[in-house]
Amino acid sequence: MARLISLVEGGSPQLREVMAALAPLTGGAYVVGLTGSPGVGKSTTTSALVTAYRRTGRRVGVLAVDPSSPFSGGALLGDRVRMSEHASDPGVYIRSMATRGHLGGLAWAAPQAIRVLDAAGCDVVLVETVGVGQSEVEIAAQADTSVVLLAPGMGDGIQAAKAGILEIGDVYVVNKADRDGADATARELNHMLGLGEARAAGDWRPPIVRTVASRGEGVDDLLDALDKHRGWTEERGALAERRRARAAGEIENIAVTALRRRIGTLHGDARLSALAARVTDGTLDPYAAADELVAGLTEP
Amino acid sequence: MARLISLVEGGSPQLREVMAALAPLTGGAYVVGLTGSPGVGKSTTTSALVTAYRRTGRRVGVLAVDPSSPFSGGALLGDRVRMSEHASDPGVYIRSMATRGHLGGLAWAAPQAIRVLDAAGCDVVLVETVGVGQSEVEIAAQADTSVVLLAPGMGDGIQAAKAGILEIGDVYVVNKADRDGADATARELNHMLGLGEARAAGDWRPPIVRTVASRGEGVDDLLDALDKHRGWTEERGALAERRRARAAGEIENIAVTALRRRIGTLHGDARLSALAARVTDGTLDPYAAADELVAGLTEP
Repeated sequence: MARLISLVEGGSPQLREVMAALAPLTGGAYVVGLTGSPGVGKSTTTSALVTAYRRTGRRVGVLAVDPSSPFSGGALLGDRVRMSEHASDPGVYIRSMATRGHLGGLAWAAPQAIRVLDAAGCDVVLVETVGVGQSEVEIAAQADTSVVLLAPGMGDGIQAAKAGILEIGDVYVVNKADRDGADATARELNHMLGLGEARAAGDWRPPIVRTVASRGEGVDDLLDALDKHRGWTEERGALAERRRARAAGEIENIAVTALRRRIGTLHGDARLSALAARVTDGTLDPYAAADELVAGLTEP
Repeated sequence: MARLISLVEGGSPQLREVMAALAPLTGGAYVVGLTGSPGVGKSTTTSALVTAYRRTGRRVGVLAVDPSSPFSGGALLGDRVRMSEHASDPGVYIRSMATRGHLGGLAWAAPQAIRVLDAAGCDVVLVETVGVGQSEVEIAAQADTSVVLLAPGMGDGIQAAKAGILEIGDVYVVNKADRDGADATARELNHMLGLGEARAAGDWRPPIVRTVASRGEGVDDLLDALDKHRGWTEERGALAERRRARAAGEIENIAVTALRRRIGTLHGDARLSALAARVTDGTLDPYAAADELVAGLTEP
């Protein structure tokens, strides 16, 4: 499995065959996304959730998506180290993934890595996004259930709002709930989400769960909240719909990446460079140049 | 000009005609990108640079690129307010741009907005990216000269490295240089960039400029550094090469966006949804689905 995920990270051409072989094995895993600003305790919460899931006998995959630097390609954070308590448990699979370097990026790679963990027999896949950029938020939002974490006194309200984090939660967690300001954070969150307002009957009302993940406090409540959201989406057919939307996005990303690759091939034959030179000297506008490029793509 | 940039923000279909008309007027502007973590004083430095450029008689365009929330679409920061001292100067054009919502995003919109300011007769266009995500860094890196700002005591080293900021600077600024820790920040930067090491003759050695932008201190030094980098790139033909690479990226983004739009049209005729349903039930893998999608694209 580690080798398969390395193929995903590297954008290997072999993935086509691998995914064809895995397809019939997929669909069994429930995918939970976890996102939040650095310092809210995402890794600690993920690790505590793994413990709680294992207690119920479920096999757990963890995918820590780390955008890291677009230039160095390396992972800066030691998530694997922090998760070391689960290292010897054969029912737990933990992988970090840093993909910024290659064509298609996280939006392309993350669903395929989830697919590998799914096919390997994980009952639950926890996708922890280390960063808070646009693409990380999109990945977390694509889960069956999205968890947004906050912590008291981090002044992360505006940052979270900017990254679009606050809109995506199915379940919210105020971690480090033993610290000063936990009540204020929960209140502010409640207010920002409009949780006090009336909702249509049958609408999901995202719960706010308080945890002290480092001591395991509140983690069973979080598990309950996740299971409740799962039940709610399954009952209404919303889960199947979410998954179709996720698959559609995945197909689209693979298609666009393939088309980009063909453009890259045109790079090679200098057609794009020639168009670019005409744009810089003002004899061609970029739209007309793009038309010529696309015409070139669809030629045999 | 404000209306043209609104067309860019909104991804208007009229842009095709607009860009064709503007093409012969472009190529005169020198593009300077400014990036750095929130709080380092980007807007203040940009504003001080505008003052310095105006003193030399150059017409200046400012494009403040604000990713804001992918969901709300609105700008959260008041850059236009902070730049108000230039509001009555007819030689200064200031625009904020928030584009996260629409197809193609910042990578698609920013070069076209720069093109509008260029065609309007700006001698210099300052592109200030408000966020520090991947796409903002890419935009700043696409400038003729990229400026990376830091400030003492912000502990932003790791954050900056993660976002890939540190690799892109042609000129570095330690702003708020009157504060404690300015020496340490400059030293750390010098170390991280390997500025003390030997370089090949003719290689550009990025200078570290100290400023207190709020009082205008060091801003003339910054202007000198920018002009020196410009001279260096022009002499070596590196400027023309950068601009061709930028145009190539722009053409590619427009082409990919056009292809994505065609996929969106396929969404409409339910072809993608049908493929997605087959992927979720495991009867088709996402690569085979993408092949069918791309085949659909190139049919008339």
